[in-house]
Amino acid sequence: MSSSVAFDASSLKFNEAGLIPAIAQDENTGEVLMMAWMNQSAIEKTLETRRVTYWSRSRQSFWIKGESSGHVQELVDLRVDCDRDCLLVFVRQTGPACHTNRRSCFYTAVRDGDEVELMAPMA
Amino acid sequence: MSSSVAFDASSLKFNEAGLIPAIAQDENTGEVLMMAWMNQSAIEKTLETRRVTYWSRSRQSFWIKGESSGHVQELVDLRVDCDRDCLLVFVRQTGPACHTNRRSCFYTAVRDGDEVELMAPMA
Repeated sequence: MSSSVAFDASSLKFNEAGLIPAIAQDENTGEVLMMAWMNQSAIEKTLETRRVTYWSRSRQSFWIKGESSGHVQELVDLRVDCDRDCLLVFVRQTGPACHTNRRSCFYTAVRDGDEVELMAPMA
Repeated sequence: MSSSVAFDASSLKFNEAGLIPAIAQDENTGEVLMMAWMNQSAIEKTLETRRVTYWSRSRQSFWIKGESSGHVQELVDLRVDCDRDCLLVFVRQTGPACHTNRRSCFYTAVRDGDEVELMAPMA
């Protein structure tokens, strides 16, 4: 399979709010760090700047990951899924990805009917 | 961190359609395989049966992954994110996860402005 076509972000499937989910995965450890949303412009900015940029639904503005915290995500690779309605971004993560200061947002497991915290905040 | 509380699926944050995104990750390779949606009952079924069960938005019915194809996902661990609005399921995947017969749904990369297919369908 060596077919290649020019990528056009407008060809993706966005939801009724014009957004598409983007999963961030650590390119070194393979750890899934977080899931957030992008609109077409955020995807274009991410590709242009190589700095992962989401769309903040609460603030209704671009969210350049780490802009205030310094916990930036450098884009390594951007993947599109078969249905064109979800993105996977491989990133080089500086510091914790989670606003709770944990490496990953997925720090709670459900085991034997209980929620268990697996990860402490980074020092 | 060793706090644990009883898990109640109704305490998660579902969208206006009553759904929450669930990312499936291969427990062995760390590969992100797919993203699909669950409602509260699908989560409960997944935990009860250890067979990953989504909610099909197109068919408006439960989607026991692999029920027709045999490409089942056995639940290994279920994780909840910090905002309680996204799930990560670690799975033991039988065969390809993607309906195109590829191992992962994320088989297209955007590189230098082009879309490039990274993965061929499994034999």
